[in-house]
Amino acid sequence: VTTRPHPDRASVRALFEPRSVALVGASEKSSWTTNIVANLTEFGYDGKLFVVKPRGGTVLGHQAYRSLTEIGEPVDVVYVMVPTDAVEAVLLEGAALGIRSFVVLSAGFGEAGGEGVERERRLQAIAREHSLCILGPNGVGYINAALHTAPYGLPIPKPLVTGGVGVVLQSGALATAFNYFAHGHNVGLSLLTSVGNEAVMTVTDVVEHLVDDPSTKVIALFLETVRDPERFRQAALRAAAAGKPIVALKIGSSELAARAAAAHTGALVGDDQVTDAAFRSLGITRVRSMEDLLYTSYLLAELGPARGDRLAVITPSGGASEIIADRAAEEGLELPPFSEDVAAKLRALLPDFATVQNPLDLTGYISVDLSLAAKAHEIVVAGGGYDQILYLNTFPKGDAGPAWEESETLLEPLAESMHQADIPTVICGSVIGDTSEYGRSVQDRLGITYVAGLDHVMTALGAQLRATRRIAAAGRGSADVVAEPAVRGARIGLWAEHHAARLLRENGIPVVPGELAVSEDDAVEAAERFGFPVVVKAAVDGLGHKSDVGGVKLGLADSGSVRKAFGEVGESLRAAGHDAPGVLVQPQRDPGVELIVGVVRDPTWGPTMVLGLGGIWVELLGDVQHLVLPADESAVREALTRLRGYRLLTGARGTEPADLDEVARVIAAIGRLAVGLGPDLESLEVNPLSVAGDRVEALDALVTWTSGKEGEA
Amino acid sequence: VTTRPHPDRASVRALFEPRSVALVGASEKSSWTTNIVANLTEFGYDGKLFVVKPRGGTVLGHQAYRSLTEIGEPVDVVYVMVPTDAVEAVLLEGAALGIRSFVVLSAGFGEAGGEGVERERRLQAIAREHSLCILGPNGVGYINAALHTAPYGLPIPKPLVTGGVGVVLQSGALATAFNYFAHGHNVGLSLLTSVGNEAVMTVTDVVEHLVDDPSTKVIALFLETVRDPERFRQAALRAAAAGKPIVALKIGSSELAARAAAAHTGALVGDDQVTDAAFRSLGITRVRSMEDLLYTSYLLAELGPARGDRLAVITPSGGASEIIADRAAEEGLELPPFSEDVAAKLRALLPDFATVQNPLDLTGYISVDLSLAAKAHEIVVAGGGYDQILYLNTFPKGDAGPAWEESETLLEPLAESMHQADIPTVICGSVIGDTSEYGRSVQDRLGITYVAGLDHVMTALGAQLRATRRIAAAGRGSADVVAEPAVRGARIGLWAEHHAARLLRENGIPVVPGELAVSEDDAVEAAERFGFPVVVKAAVDGLGHKSDVGGVKLGLADSGSVRKAFGEVGESLRAAGHDAPGVLVQPQRDPGVELIVGVVRDPTWGPTMVLGLGGIWVELLGDVQHLVLPADESAVREALTRLRGYRLLTGARGTEPADLDEVARVIAAIGRLAVGLGPDLESLEVNPLSVAGDRVEALDALVTWTSGKEGEA
Repeated sequence: VTTRPHPDRASVRALFEPRSVALVGASEKSSWTTNIVANLTEFGYDGKLFVVKPRGGTVLGHQAYRSLTEIGEPVDVVYVMVPTDAVEAVLLEGAALGIRSFVVLSAGFGEAGGEGVERERRLQAIAREHSLCILGPNGVGYINAALHTAPYGLPIPKPLVTGGVGVVLQSGALATAFNYFAHGHNVGLSLLTSVGNEAVMTVTDVVEHLVDDPSTKVIALFLETVRDPERFRQAALRAAAAGKPIVALKIGSSELAARAAAAHTGALVGDDQVTDAAFRSLGITRVRSMEDLLYTSYLLAELGPARGDRLAVITPSGGASEIIADRAAEEGLELPPFSEDVAAKLRALLPDFATVQNPLDLTGYISVDLSLAAKAHEIVVAGGGYDQILYLNTFPKGDAGPAWEESETLLEPLAESMHQADIPTVICGSVIGDTSEYGRSVQDRLGITYVAGLDHVMTALGAQLRATRRIAAAGRGSADVVAEPAVRGARIGLWAEHHAARLLRENGIPVVPGELAVSEDDAVEAAERFGFPVVVKAAVDGLGHKSDVGGVKLGLADSGSVRKAFGEVGESLRAAGHDAPGVLVQPQRDPGVELIVGVVRDPTWGPTMVLGLGGIWVELLGDVQHLVLPADESAVREALTRLRGYRLLTGARGTEPADLDEVARVIAAIGRLAVGLGPDLESLEVNPLSVAGDRVEALDALVTWTSGKEGEA
Repeated sequence: VTTRPHPDRASVRALFEPRSVALVGASEKSSWTTNIVANLTEFGYDGKLFVVKPRGGTVLGHQAYRSLTEIGEPVDVVYVMVPTDAVEAVLLEGAALGIRSFVVLSAGFGEAGGEGVERERRLQAIAREHSLCILGPNGVGYINAALHTAPYGLPIPKPLVTGGVGVVLQSGALATAFNYFAHGHNVGLSLLTSVGNEAVMTVTDVVEHLVDDPSTKVIALFLETVRDPERFRQAALRAAAAGKPIVALKIGSSELAARAAAAHTGALVGDDQVTDAAFRSLGITRVRSMEDLLYTSYLLAELGPARGDRLAVITPSGGASEIIADRAAEEGLELPPFSEDVAAKLRALLPDFATVQNPLDLTGYISVDLSLAAKAHEIVVAGGGYDQILYLNTFPKGDAGPAWEESETLLEPLAESMHQADIPTVICGSVIGDTSEYGRSVQDRLGITYVAGLDHVMTALGAQLRATRRIAAAGRGSADVVAEPAVRGARIGLWAEHHAARLLRENGIPVVPGELAVSEDDAVEAAERFGFPVVVKAAVDGLGHKSDVGGVKLGLADSGSVRKAFGEVGESLRAAGHDAPGVLVQPQRDPGVELIVGVVRDPTWGPTMVLGLGGIWVELLGDVQHLVLPADESAVREALTRLRGYRLLTGARGTEPADLDEVARVIAAIGRLAVGLGPDLESLEVNPLSVAGDRVEALDALVTWTSGKEGEA
């Protein structure tokens, strides 16, 4: 990762907006060549195309140059499809000619393992030395639909549909699948890029470009991994600030560091949940399928951000209305009833047997009176109170004829009403399917937003709402860190509770009081100072689960019990092979609600907090939430509300309602401390964090350090 | 409901397999007429078609008869599209001629409300009197694709694709949407029926027909409501016994009786969860969207039942492999690694840079060597150890040309290998989309199973597995009921605990011992017999939540406490306006794990059990399972394992592992008793049912009766 040279934004832009492209390694026998030449000549690209072939001659009617040098005029982008071993020479020749931008289709690099890895390192070195911007290797190129420029090695369906969705994919096969899918649904793209091995340019570089690209309204990502998380984070926040939603299909698993095994939370951090948490904090909306990636991106590009959650629905079918109602509830969309006034006007409009409610079923009578569509739409729009309208109507398939005419009659006045409305309307076909020839023509002519498949559309409308909320909140939950936390003791191994507790206390985190005692008498005196009942715990560095070895004695009600406990704990520890330098005496707390707060280091996203309710909640239900740090109090509070057991903090089942400000303050402070401790810290766990009203206290804590690095004692 | 006359199976069959159809009310101006005439002449129907029009003349080239009578020869089915007021006369005329089967397209019946409801009753009366089999009214008809017979009022896309999926829909608009969708995906149907108002024939009648129909392998349902649950139940069980899976998209909500409000469980029964439970017991697999309805039905029809959960996956793309791996985990499908032998052969076959694992990525090299597809398939099949294979390959779109040729080269040997394999293979395109012309031709020619859209396909493969398990278990969980339960006391209102406890005890359900005491001395004596600590509870009929009015005193450790509790309970009750005839004294139990077992009456499915863990599990998590009764011990055990807190019964967190046989026995006995009590019973709730090892005991119970009906005292 550290060896990857990153191109600057100007050279990325030059790559995507060439006025001249040279194809090196072209051959009439290769379908790659056929595709690229077709893609650069049949979609409206009006820049220059040079073909380079060492033996000269012609390729598909284009006079071939013997080398880049022979071209003798400036070339903006070189598309490299020579044999693996010849790639470096082409790059060096181009660099010598002042060419900075390359697409490398040739494979046999990092993805091939072995020697290929070394080859990819050399390619990176060349890029660094000559400041080259390289897309690939092992990448099929890109389609800049907005500029009709497509140095792309796979077939592109016609016509080219342009629109506001910019797509980046870490898979060549899926790039083409996605492109055909978008085309089939008449969804216009701005730029589609398949990044190949990301030896130089990564997904992040393309995202940075798309943030600045005026044609792109929404950024859609297919991700297997995020190669440069810190830069990606900055790019995502910049996209959010620019109001451009990022929608991502993220697959695979990123492997959580098992280093934190000593802490319970180590086992609880699911990598996929960390991705969720990271995306949430960056304003990225995650989807589950290629279909949802397309639909969500398209609706966000067409409709813009959601103005709110109030949806009005107009359909010709009761059955579809009920599907929509079921799905709206799942997606958090509201279907507020029509106002009295609107309902009265709709009743006057529709046949007697129609039931006037939202979702509105116009009934089969729509096929008798096609004007009902626009009239009902106008009434709903005029009544106000909604943020968006969903109109269910399937475009006819097959040839022009009566079906087309009927559809025109319905759609023309409806489109008129849509364009005059102050809220957006999406027209939706009941099941997913390719857009018909009619659909394509009518969409273009009337300028309407159409998608087929109401299940996916409801998912996309839900995602639109989440995306809008997320980009508004992106980055807001970040917090300052503790720049230089007070740390006493060597940053090594696993710290005993009293040691960890001191670290917390000295950095502003409330901890239950405790005193170290090295004799029975000391222990009893400490207990008397606190008042009974007390707790006696082993105080030994390097001991993880004290209670497993008999190192914890609870509910000691008198001095006799304390003496006995002191002896037993010491004995247990000696039996387990530990010295017994002493015990920790603490007042026994009424536990209230117990939380677990842990911080571990995710290999991709860095320090990550795991937050949950103790006991069954964590152990049986895995009811935890993740926060990629730094996270402020508002982000902590928001994470708490997502816990299934959240209501235990607000007084459910007779618990004392917690002071949530204080809870959030303490948890955020734990996060700040953990971030401030830097990479020395392997994990920090407070378990439990006891919450009773406004008393929020760490009752036990565990700190483990990455290495044997020495600090001050 | 009780007034609906059900047609016998022979007349239903006659309706769907006519050799002559008469169209009454035909008019060239009506698109219904155009559609039906086209549908009965252009798809291969070779029976007779008569057109009836009072004024005679011709309709679309067909000589029109002035009446049914004038036809003068037998007619199997009359398609009625006359004005609403004229429908009855047509039915009567037909009946007089001995015609038994009708499709009524005309609307203005039950769906129109008011007078229409009365009209529908008259139609039912005519059907009953003359033993007519009527589909509709307000129904568009059916498409018997297997027989090329389509008296259907909406357009049908060409070509007609026939196959094993029989579909019944409670929505005309969605019937046509589904038909176009199936056609677009080249999914063949046997019979598609839109049932309209179900005045006579219901979904159940069509299901009964499809169970017997040799062309139908899978039954797909779009349901808003089940009109005749008891007959539906029988039909579903018959389908399961015949090995025909039913796949259902059930929408809307069926409204749970609020009558059981006195019992906690009343509020816990979500109608949708009852539908889930009913479907589970009937072997019906529920899906979430029209897309999943089609895909699941199609795969079940093509592949048959799942042989197991072991899937081998072959793809040309790493990205798609990872999507598949993620989705397989969600769907409960296993992707077992290849055996050493298979892996070695695949390594020898594939380029060095390929990673040999399941899912297998053939890499982009597949485009260089198309024979890899069949070769890899053969190796995987020969190795054994899998139940099914998923091969990812998208059919080319566009015109015939190089892409078609390449596809042939890949598919022909692959299809050969598929046909010789002992396990089924499904070919899957990466994203959903209409089948291309090429796809249609190659599917027909090579006889391969193809579906596009891997997200939906993975859903369908998961559903195939669930469907297979469900139909194998369908009906097995039923149990005998208690035919004549011992009941003492008037079946009226709300029974006090001691009263309800006696009912349970006398019907074989273990209940914590208890004694009624009407004086302090009695109470103390009872307590001394049980041994301290004891519990004292108010014993008053008509009192629901005793603890809310101070009617429960727990943990009474000595006789003094019992005396005090006796007085306090009496006082509380008098303050709350109740007589205080006495208290119930019980030994205090260590509660162990507490379950809630409630039975309420669902308006559709009848007596339904709600089962859950007490405390936070029910109150905060709504962690309950439903069982439509009667249910036997095996069904109860299965429901228990579905509880999120199930592990508390098996010893998690230090609880004593429960004797699950005894738990299931007791819960099933509660269900048997509730069913045996019949419709008098409004609800029965045991809360808690205490479980500690093999001690399973009702600690409290509540019985409410529907009415004031008197029983023996």
